[in-house]
Order: sequence, then structure tokens, then C-alpha cells
Amino acid sequence: MDKLRVCLFCFAVVCLCSCIQFAEAGGPKKPNHKDGVATARWLVSQTTWGVLSTISVELGGAPFGNVASFSDGLAGEGHGIPYFYMTTLDPTPRNALKDARCSFSVNEFPLGSCGGKDPQNPTCAKLTLTGKLKLVDSNTTEATWAKDVLFVKHPEMKACLLIINWTFHGFQIFKLEIEDIFLINWFGGSQTITVAQYLQPRLWVQE
Amino acid sequence: MDKLRVCLFCFAVVCLCSCIQFAEAGGPKKPNHKDGVATARWLVSQTTWGVLSTISVELGGAPFGNVASFSDGLAGEGHGIPYFYMTTLDPTPRNALKDARCSFSVNEFPLGSCGGKDPQNPTCAKLTLTGKLKLVDSNTTEATWAKDVLFVKHPEMKACLLIINWTFHGFQIFKLEIEDIFLINWFGGSQTITVAQYLQPRLWVQE
Repeated sequence: MDKLRVCLFCFAVVCLCSCIQFAEAGGPKKPNHKDGVATARWLVSQTTWGVLSTISVELGGAPFGNVASFSDGLAGEGHGIPYFYMTTLDPTPRNALKDARCSFSVNEFPLGSCGGKDPQNPTCAKLTLTGKLKLVDSNTTEATWAKDVLFVKHPEMKACLLIINWTFHGFQIFKLEIEDIFLINWFGGSQTITVAQYLQPRLWVQE
Repeated sequence: MDKLRVCLFCFAVVCLCSCIQFAEAGGPKKPNHKDGVATARWLVSQTTWGVLSTISVELGGAPFGNVASFSDGLAGEGHGIPYFYMTTLDPTPRNALKDARCSFSVNEFPLGSCGGKDPQNPTCAKLTLTGKLKLVDSNTTEATWAKDVLFVKHPEMKACLLIINWTFHGFQIFKLEIEDIFLINWFGGSQTITVAQYLQPRLWVQE
């Protein structure tokens, strides 16, 4: 009977550890919904990908959404500006080089912190950053920094660079120059957030 | 010692059942990457949400991406056409009623079947359906059918309808009339899929 108890205790400990690990995997806790700026920066800091929407050259000016991995900085040091590593073999950067108008949509659902709610539930945060998608000059310290932080968040990008030579495909750094912020994270419509408020330096503290 | 064995056996059974449940939760297996049509229909059938990109009225014609839950039919009976349940309190349907040009982007990464690859890895399937986002007349059998299949895939929509009266918010059925299909699911660029090929009836068989 003692062994049974020990076994059940071990099982409980394993479950507890798994739960703690799962909870910690998400990084800093989601901010209170009343703090829209913190929620927006948290989303950009915690997510690894989103959908870039550009004006399609090939589809007569239709809006064209496409998945893109991104980074806004090292963990806990994000600046809020999404940087991308893309090739003009893909239509999104080709579109942006013709017409830089763009939006980038990230949301909370893939983080697993919406508590079982539907992705469209307004309490499951959704952020759209609208602005211009600009090529970053590869000879700048900004491009070097962006590549470094992208490779930390997306190690596969670096691995691919070494293995199949992504440079052969003309991968370059792009960034979103943000002009408008649209955030839904509660009932009652979008929150008003200015770009200046959003870009304020923010120290991420594990709560 | 026997009790310990029984306990470990039960633990193993619980783990195995969880694994089977997890594997089954994803539904039909991902088709072979060479079959682009099947992959596109599989993605639309298995995913529950995506990003709708419209031409923003309020942001001077900028492309505006926004998360939307959708359904293309009951499990195993999807038709490939995404239907949405949205309110004009949200900018996406407002935009579409002014300019119906739209794209809908869904991808494999949230399904958890990309095998640890980066979301931007070309083998992690990405689909963009471009066309027109149209309001469906609420007095048609199409609207009734669409509402039914949306409520099956998104029970919260029906619950909200009953509890907080979504009709008060003017929720209506919209659908994407598909004109172009862009699929990345392997190295070497997008696959060419015609709308006619994509819309062919398809029977989903659990492989």
C-alpha cells in the first residue's frame, strides 16, 4: 500500500511539474485587459509569427495575407517593432517593394492562454499593426541586430542559412514602420493606443 | 510489488490514451505534399480560424488583417468555402461592404502538425484564398446552413447568441467567393491550384 501511495505521489508530482512547465513556457503573464499598451507589447513579445497583409501586385491590388515569422528583440528586451527575414521569391516582400502599405496581425490564441475561448472571442487578444513594410539596408547595425534577434527566436532561419544557403534565395531584413494600432482584448470594441504610447520602453518582469 | 506494477500499467494506459486522443483530435492525416488540392482542402477543413485581409476604409486603403473564426461545413463534409459570422461593429465586414476584395490566410502551424519546424518553413503549409467577401442574405437556406455549421465548429458563437444576444450586435453571415489560391507546402515556391480543382467534392477518410 505504501508503494502505491509513493507511486501516486510521484504521478501527482510529474503532473504538477508538467503544469508548471506549461504555464512558464508562455513567459510573462498576460497584462490586465485594461492596460492595452502592455497587452499589445506582450503579444508582440510572446508570439513568434503572424500574418502580413500587403497590396498584391499580381492580384490587381487585392489585400494579400501571408504567414511570417518575426522578432521584436531578445526575450525581455523587445522594442515592439516587428522585424522579418524574407525573400522576394515570396510575393509579400515583392508587393511591399511596390507599395509599402501593410498590416501585421498577431493574436493570443496560438499562445494557448485564451482559456478555451473561441479565437473570435473579444477577450482573446488580437492586435493589428498597420504601417509601411520597409527593407532594412543590410550594411547597417540595425540589420545586423535584427538578424541576430531573429535567429535567436527562429534558430531554423540560421540553420537554413548555413545548410541550404538562404542568401542564395535573397533573404533580407524587413521591418514594419508602425502608423496605427488596433487592439481587441475585451468586450466593447478596440482600444485606442497611440504609436508613441506603444513604443515606450518596457521592462518585462516575470509576474 | 504487484500493486506498483498495476499502478505503473495504469499510468502507461493513461499516457497512451492521452496520446491517441491528441493524435485523433487533429482529424484526417495531412495529405502528401505533392497533392496541393488535398492539402489546401485539408487545411481549411481542419483549422478553425484564420486572418481576413480587407482594404481599410478608415486607414486610407491600407490592407487590414484581422482574426476571424470560420467553417466550411461539418467535419468530413466541408465544401472548401469559408463562412464567417461577423458584426459591422468590427472593421473587417465594414471594409468588405465598401470594397469586397479580400484574402483569407490559414496555416498548419496552430494545428501542431509541423513537427517542430518554424512557421515560416515552407513544409509547414500556408494557404491564402483571395476573392470577394460577400454578405449572405439571412433569409436563404445557405445562411441557415452556414449558421448551423459555424455553431457546430464554434459552440461559443451559439452560446453568446443566446446569452448576450449577438443579434443585438448585428452578427451576419459572410462568405469568401474564392478567385485565387496560393499554397506553400514544400520547397520550390507556391503550387498552382485552380478554383475548379479546389472546389471539387472531396470525401475525407480517416487514414
